[in-house]
Amino acid sequence: MSEALRVGVAGATGYAGRELVRLLARHPGAALRVATVSTPADESREVPSLRGVWKGGFRPLALDELSALSAVFLALPESVAAKVAPTLVDAGVRVFDLSGAFRLRDAEARKRWYPESPELSRDGVVYGLTEMHRDELPGAKLVTCPGCYPTAALLALGPLVAANLLAPGQGVIVDAKSGISGAGKAPSTRTHFSELHGNVAAYGIFGHRHVAEMEQDLGRSVTFVPHLVPLNRGILETIYAQLAGGVTDADVSGALQAAYADAPFVRLTGSTLPEIQDVAYTNFCDIGWKVDAATGRLVVVACLDNLLKGAAGQAVQNFNVAFGLDEREGLE
Amino acid sequence: MSEALRVGVAGATGYAGRELVRLLARHPGAALRVATVSTPADESREVPSLRGVWKGGFRPLALDELSALSAVFLALPESVAAKVAPTLVDAGVRVFDLSGAFRLRDAEARKRWYPESPELSRDGVVYGLTEMHRDELPGAKLVTCPGCYPTAALLALGPLVAANLLAPGQGVIVDAKSGISGAGKAPSTRTHFSELHGNVAAYGIFGHRHVAEMEQDLGRSVTFVPHLVPLNRGILETIYAQLAGGVTDADVSGALQAAYADAPFVRLTGSTLPEIQDVAYTNFCDIGWKVDAATGRLVVVACLDNLLKGAAGQAVQNFNVAFGLDEREGLE
Amino acid sequence: MSEALRVGVAGATGYAGRELVRLLARHPGAALRVATVSTPADESREVPSLRGVWKGGFRPLALDELSALSAVFLALPESVAAKVAPTLVDAGVRVFDLSGAFRLRDAEARKRWYPESPELSRDGVVYGLTEMHRDELPGAKLVTCPGCYPTAALLALGPLVAANLLAPGQGVIVDAKSGISGAGKAPSTRTHFSELHGNVAAYGIFGHRHVAEMEQDLGRSVTFVPHLVPLNRGILETIYAQLAGGVTDADVSGALQAAYADAPFVRLTGSTLPEIQDVAYTNFCDIGWKVDAATGRLVVVACLDNLLKGAAGQAVQNFNVAFGLDEREGLE
Amino acid sequence: MSEALRVGVAGATGYAGRELVRLLARHPGAALRVATVSTPADESREVPSLRGVWKGGFRPLALDELSALSAVFLALPESVAAKVAPTLVDAGVRVFDLSGAFRLRDAEARKRWYPESPELSRDGVVYGLTEMHRDELPGAKLVTCPGCYPTAALLALGPLVAANLLAPGQGVIVDAKSGISGAGKAPSTRTHFSELHGNVAAYGIFGHRHVAEMEQDLGRSVTFVPHLVPLNRGILETIYAQLAGGVTDADVSGALQAAYADAPFVRLTGSTLPEIQDVAYTNFCDIGWKVDAATGRLVVVACLDNLLKGAAGQAVQNFNVAFGLDEREGLE
Repeated sequence: MSEALRVGVAGATGYAGRELVRLLARHPGAALRVATVSTPADESREVPSLRGVWKGGFRPLALDELSALSAVFLALPESVAAKVAPTLVDAGVRVFDLSGAFRLRDAEARKRWYPESPELSRDGVVYGLTEMHRDELPGAKLVTCPGCYPTAALLALGPLVAANLLAPGQGVIVDAKSGISGAGKAPSTRTHFSELHGNVAAYGIFGHRHVAEMEQDLGRSVTFVPHLVPLNRGILETIYAQLAGGVTDADVSGALQAAYADAPFVRLTGSTLPEIQDVAYTNFCDIGWKVDAATGRLVVVACLDNLLKGAAGQAVQNFNVAFGLDEREGLE
Repeated sequence: MSEALRVGVAGATGYAGRELVRLLARHPGAALRVATVSTPADESREVPSLRGVWKGGFRPLALDELSALSAVFLALPESVAAKVAPTLVDAGVRVFDLSGAFRLRDAEARKRWYPESPELSRDGVVYGLTEMHRDELPGAKLVTCPGCYPTAALLALGPLVAANLLAPGQGVIVDAKSGISGAGKAPSTRTHFSELHGNVAAYGIFGHRHVAEMEQDLGRSVTFVPHLVPLNRGILETIYAQLAGGVTDADVSGALQAAYADAPFVRLTGSTLPEIQDVAYTNFCDIGWKVDAATGRLVVVACLDNLLKGAAGQAVQNFNVAFGLDEREGLE
Repeated sequence: MSEALRVGVAGATGYAGRELVRLLARHPGAALRVATVSTPADESREVPSLRGVWKGGFRPLALDELSALSAVFLALPESVAAKVAPTLVDAGVRVFDLSGAFRLRDAEARKRWYPESPELSRDGVVYGLTEMHRDELPGAKLVTCPGCYPTAALLALGPLVAANLLAPGQGVIVDAKSGISGAGKAPSTRTHFSELHGNVAAYGIFGHRHVAEMEQDLGRSVTFVPHLVPLNRGILETIYAQLAGGVTDADVSGALQAAYADAPFVRLTGSTLPEIQDVAYTNFCDIGWKVDAATGRLVVVACLDNLLKGAAGQAVQNFNVAFGLDEREGLE
Repeated sequence: MSEALRVGVAGATGYAGRELVRLLARHPGAALRVATVSTPADESREVPSLRGVWKGGFRPLALDELSALSAVFLALPESVAAKVAPTLVDAGVRVFDLSGAFRLRDAEARKRWYPESPELSRDGVVYGLTEMHRDELPGAKLVTCPGCYPTAALLALGPLVAANLLAPGQGVIVDAKSGISGAGKAPSTRTHFSELHGNVAAYGIFGHRHVAEMEQDLGRSVTFVPHLVPLNRGILETIYAQLAGGVTDADVSGALQAAYADAPFVRLTGSTLPEIQDVAYTNFCDIGWKVDAATGRLVVVACLDNLLKGAAGQAVQNFNVAFGLDEREGLE
């Protein structure tokens, strides 16, 4: 094996950060050198799940240290990522950013949803939905990894939009059920165990910034309602759309199969609908669907692990593709 | 207090049946006399949660015994309820049926979705969505209690349809998240703990018979996708509809407030969306909503406890109204 | 019915406080007049589960207002209860305190485990384990309600100790599994949903103050290990003890049956071991046991709902007995 | 890399079997050739979690086919394993048996707890608690992998017994909290989701056959009470023992550290007690402890994933050691 690429993780003790550390510490093509934390108290704190996995400890974020690496993964708040990423890019480091700071191409939209995000040049910025942008990744300077909700929605609908299978001019509805790890590690009343056990709660209706990210790539309006469901890891999205006239179940099936014929992490389940339990703790996105032939109504169900395919896993997948490694390396 | 009404429960050891026994054993206006089971083995089986609550034991279903009562609650499979109910009605017993056997008015629809259901006369049959049919209940011979899913959807949308607030000719989407007790007490792979913990699963797309029940009262097409979520009691429905031109949030609010001003078990939460935890183990149905003024899109969220307001509780509520008792008796 | 007793709840928006409000708002023998909160922000905050149940709002704690009532329930931190209770007692109010401030009779122990607790006179103070102190309750000025863990342990072991059935001089082990609501409503990393889903965690080994409360009434050493288990309401305790020579299963059974023959809220399940699901949302404590005849080893399993029989429910039960009402009033 | 060893899994669709397939399909030193099922219907059934992981399908168990392999993993009922294993051993196949059929060395004990188990020669049979029997594994013909409960208990207590740190002649208590996957995939009322959500249940007191397995290696009596807790994967055991006179916390710590200095899958957490969440989906067993110096009471807490370190993972670990591979291969 050729020499491993030297990499670092910034924001290593958040939920996505821990997954990055876990994946990269064992990645055969990567040598994890630095894991940084933002709070000094976290430097000496032990992450129990990483005992025996990552022995390198946690250090404060130092840009010069990170600048000496081949690649850096950012699992930071938007405002911090927005500052750190350009410096690293300028230093020639390949950056894989898990925040939303760079996802929106439109400056107006970015200002509305990510006001902390800079007016940076988008030269070399690639939207890291691996399956859709695989060819652009090797040339990327900064890979802006998609949000967990958009990853599922775009993988499910992207090929159907591209093949013009959806009724033109009509919006789609994305009803998402999400595990709680997506809310991060900071305690709050909303994420207090007693407030979620035996509970389901909708939130963010008409006001979630992932809508902009979905609409950006789908080119149509999206009604998006996320829900907290009492589990830890995984998202299931139930997507409602109207097919264009004459479009059949076979057309839907054909478009999806063509899109993912060579995608190791997208599994099409056909009319057997996918479930969170089969993707949790994996990098798979499973997609199934049903068509009501009489009315042309389409329901697509897509699910993934929000911390893996929806965050750290996809970031590593992008890293693999960007550096010419096997796409699956370190992810199985 | 006047003498308590003599009542019985048929099918007393299923999940809805147990709730009926628990509620009626303590109901100040009812004297529970008989609780029947269908399986001889169940006669001697103890239901731990009813220890110290119901000491009358369980007996096999005997029509002559039930015929001597003032009211009988049926928590039976459709095919059994379809046979038992007419006999009891003929004997002058007021019947409160929790099965689907009598819910659909249209004979064709009934034949399709409930083939075991009889071609009975519908004289004296009242659809027991209490808030909508309160005035008909005192004259009812047989109250056919709504399904758990339709109860939430109809309470949420009924007043809006009645006030012509929804865009004409357009369907609505009902995305439901249901606790597992709705599947009943029979073990199966689908309801095996290990298959549901940490999981969400959609089922019954385009083929659930509750759709017919919703469409019957809403007069428009319904796309309904129920999901199993990992909790025991409660349903949350996220309902997507398009408002008619010019209809505002205030119109929606006004219609719902007018409809439920005197309804003790419907709580309107406005733009604070309701959650399952606040209705579980109660007979409440909580309803909240959001309107996107720019596009006229409406999202209504309704939730209830599937075994109470969605089954046993609503049956007792109907019993109270039918016999002129306080609607809340035995339900608080 | 005679006129209802005027009561108040101090600390009404904590988890135990909400249960007190819910129970007392519907209690036929009590008229809830005041519900206080400690944080001004909580005064205008709505508790969704109390919508339609308690319409009296929340006010700041005012001693003169509470002093005009017949009884006040305190669901306050120890340090606050320790200050408030004596004043109310002096004003002639019957106080039902859910905190630990007054539970320990020994001044040394109290100083160690509850340093915020006063050196008050213990005249008129009754330890409110209802089944054990029923006769003292009518004369009580201050009822110090037991902790949730001691309630289960003492109900399980008390009659066996009293009948000298346990091997003298030997300690007992109490291994408790508790739902998370026992930790209260304040968010923390420990009670963050993602840290408890799919998890079990022991805590407080050799250092939990409920040990002193158990030892006080059992007169022997207790090794107590509580665990957090991923559910919201309920405690199950598995208790290990050695029987005295010659003591049989029948002796154990006899002692427990004699103790609880007239106790409406203790259910003995014999060798069928009790489970949390049958006591959650009730005021029951269920107790079962197994004896290994060859070795004299005894395992007792006891369970209850920590917010009801372990807190608010038992407080109301004490209130009922103290005022000569039916013990079950408002609790079914 | 040298040529991969040809292996098979018998009983591939049970919960432990699926984990074996998942691990071995990706194991760099093993070439999974055959996965068998016992029910013909299972041959064509898809295991959704294995989509894209194992493409070899499922076949009926054929002894001649398995006999051509280097190693076979048996995830079968005891009665079937008891019949299959000797045949494979005779054919020269290294057998890794996950059932209990061969675990007990004493013929009397085996007859009592595993009456279906044969009076086979124990020549070449090694008890596969890897950390304790690492040196015997290379010579093993049949590795009888420990039960999930004994694995945790023996790893926690074994070194303390070996160092004579426990009070002689005194029994230990093992209070176990287990996720539901340990009960297997067959639906039952006991494992019905609605019967376990929000529940804890003790079972098998004084009658669980894992007691014999613990006592066999500890040489002292064990009181063992397993409990079902509402999660899927993982076991936490709280173990109560009395230290011998003069034994200190440092002695306990020293014995455990010496025992596991080179064990990659045992992590000692000291007085920070381990939790299930940190071992779930891993092959780690985490062990922590507390000593009450004044009384010599010891509490040890050990946890592991019942399907990995408690079943499939440990079997693969044994396979690695038996064949001279890196102990961690395929397990990270």
